[in-house]
Amino acid sequence: MLEDKNPKPLNELEELGEFGLIQHLTENIKLKNPSSIKGVGDDAAVIEYKDKQTVVTTDLLVEGIHFDMIYTPLKHLGYKAATVNLSDVYAMNATPKQITVSIAVSNHMSIEGLEELYEGILLACEVYGVDLVGGDTTSSTSGLIISITAIGEGDKDTLVFRDEAKENDLICVSGDLGGAFMGLQLLEREKQIFQENPQVQPDFSGYDYVLERQLKPEPRKDVVDMFKEIGVHPTSMIDVSDGLSSDLIHICTQSNVGCTIYEDKIPIDPSTITAAEEMQLDPIVCALNGGEDYELLFTISLDDYNKIKDQKRVAVIGHITSDEGSYQIVSKDEKIHQLTAQGWNSILKKD
Amino acid sequence: MLEDKNPKPLNELEELGEFGLIQHLTENIKLKNPSSIKGVGDDAAVIEYKDKQTVVTTDLLVEGIHFDMIYTPLKHLGYKAATVNLSDVYAMNATPKQITVSIAVSNHMSIEGLEELYEGILLACEVYGVDLVGGDTTSSTSGLIISITAIGEGDKDTLVFRDEAKENDLICVSGDLGGAFMGLQLLEREKQIFQENPQVQPDFSGYDYVLERQLKPEPRKDVVDMFKEIGVHPTSMIDVSDGLSSDLIHICTQSNVGCTIYEDKIPIDPSTITAAEEMQLDPIVCALNGGEDYELLFTISLDDYNKIKDQKRVAVIGHITSDEGSYQIVSKDEKIHQLTAQGWNSILKKD
Repeated sequence: MLEDKNPKPLNELEELGEFGLIQHLTENIKLKNPSSIKGVGDDAAVIEYKDKQTVVTTDLLVEGIHFDMIYTPLKHLGYKAATVNLSDVYAMNATPKQITVSIAVSNHMSIEGLEELYEGILLACEVYGVDLVGGDTTSSTSGLIISITAIGEGDKDTLVFRDEAKENDLICVSGDLGGAFMGLQLLEREKQIFQENPQVQPDFSGYDYVLERQLKPEPRKDVVDMFKEIGVHPTSMIDVSDGLSSDLIHICTQSNVGCTIYEDKIPIDPSTITAAEEMQLDPIVCALNGGEDYELLFTISLDDYNKIKDQKRVAVIGHITSDEGSYQIVSKDEKIHQLTAQGWNSILKKD
Repeated sequence: MLEDKNPKPLNELEELGEFGLIQHLTENIKLKNPSSIKGVGDDAAVIEYKDKQTVVTTDLLVEGIHFDMIYTPLKHLGYKAATVNLSDVYAMNATPKQITVSIAVSNHMSIEGLEELYEGILLACEVYGVDLVGGDTTSSTSGLIISITAIGEGDKDTLVFRDEAKENDLICVSGDLGGAFMGLQLLEREKQIFQENPQVQPDFSGYDYVLERQLKPEPRKDVVDMFKEIGVHPTSMIDVSDGLSSDLIHICTQSNVGCTIYEDKIPIDPSTITAAEEMQLDPIVCALNGGEDYELLFTISLDDYNKIKDQKRVAVIGHITSDEGSYQIVSKDEKIHQLTAQGWNSILKKD
């Protein structure tokens, strides 16, 4: 990951021109979805969902803010840029069908680099059955900028919003939390070691899981499929991008309710715990505030508890209360603490 | 325009946080369109077009590449960022209904500045009946980045693409060309004078039209409305963003045809000619390669000529030929020249 790949500084980008570049990067795209009527190559793409509703979400990723090119392989970056958007569509209980991709690149970027980035984006499209239907390619005076818009379809009656969590609803989360944040900490640590002494090869052995959580997050299509299978309609849902605390507070604020969750119910993978302890961080704080897990955080009516209780991919971590503005976590020693939307910066300041 | 507005370097942006910032900028938005089911505030926006098709287009604007903050008032920048996207929707013979807006800003940007930018975006939404339904706000390590996605609706039978121009079709263009490019040249000239001697106030008197063409372009909704009124269905259409030559060649390439246009038919405003001559540029070259005019370039069947011939906002400038790959312009002295997709850089190199 930290190896020097010696990309040829081609400057071919300018020669190809914007039109040529888009054509080059998108020439092998074949539209898969019947709803994708017209893809790349016109003023706009054309989509037709007939009796479904359309959901639209967009994300802007900026080099130096959202990713560090030193330890992010371009193919992974492309994959992640696409999947974090798809995750937002799944968080509406909808199915992503199309994306548009806009990128701004500096002259330092080689065509090979851009091809790798697109490979990752197109791989995500392949895995999740999505068509790349449009976009924009332009120059940047500084780093790489990626803007992706994901479009999907859902039934009017099954879309799930953030503002309909009700008192006594159970709070559930898929998968496990904190791993992506620990992956990032490891990458940052090895980057520092490498910068101080380029002879030292990074040591990532045993950390595959948390690294993958950071570099190649998968949106939880399987959980959305599960809802359909077992006949559960969540009352509210959000994907965990900012961190469990922050995202749960979003649901509560928008639903005008409060919440109580339990520390001992929060799912954390053993390798996340090992990595956190090694770096002298509190695993539970990482799980609460780390973010970028792209798990689904949702609430269900008590009536649906029996349907969900044996689903291994979902943990029930607490319940919604009528106490608007009160966001509580009960620690293992049964003390009550206030949840705050701190974001991951606070984790490192604290410890 | 070049005045120093002394914006307070607030750094409030960080204090507000991403969530607070989006809320602050979007709190007064009221959805106008029945198709806008759910706007800002969830993982994704929700749209419903029923029996219409959806068109989607996206643009990425980067400071230092697409705009210069020295002479671009932020409100104008916001307005233009929105309208250039709406123009792409109109170029499909469709009606824009929603936009999403993603912006990345550095710490140098004040909240007042961001508010002005949004004011411009929301003014464009107001004028063109569009809802702002979502977006993303993040930090930038360098300049301002704006990514806008516009979504619109059209009837399956009336959408117009780039690839269906036929031999003998008439080539038409709305409004006039070259003005936006001359506006840019003026702004660049006054910027240089100002940088060399900040005491000299810029002199823009008599240049209102070309400045407005550059700073506040209007998409041609009225032309799309006209098609409906007079019952014309263009065989192909594109908006003039790269320049007449380049955009006409896009239509021809995608339709596998050639074209012949006539220099004396190309509409150029008198103030564009005056400005070009003053700056020792050839007005016709500016009209062919200047770009950013956001006029509609389209082809119609010969049968529709009578319907369009008295429409003052449209000029017939030539016709489509069967000669694939041959793009010709007949000059005033009746000589035939080849059209090339040079883009505006070439204009200045040439002269």
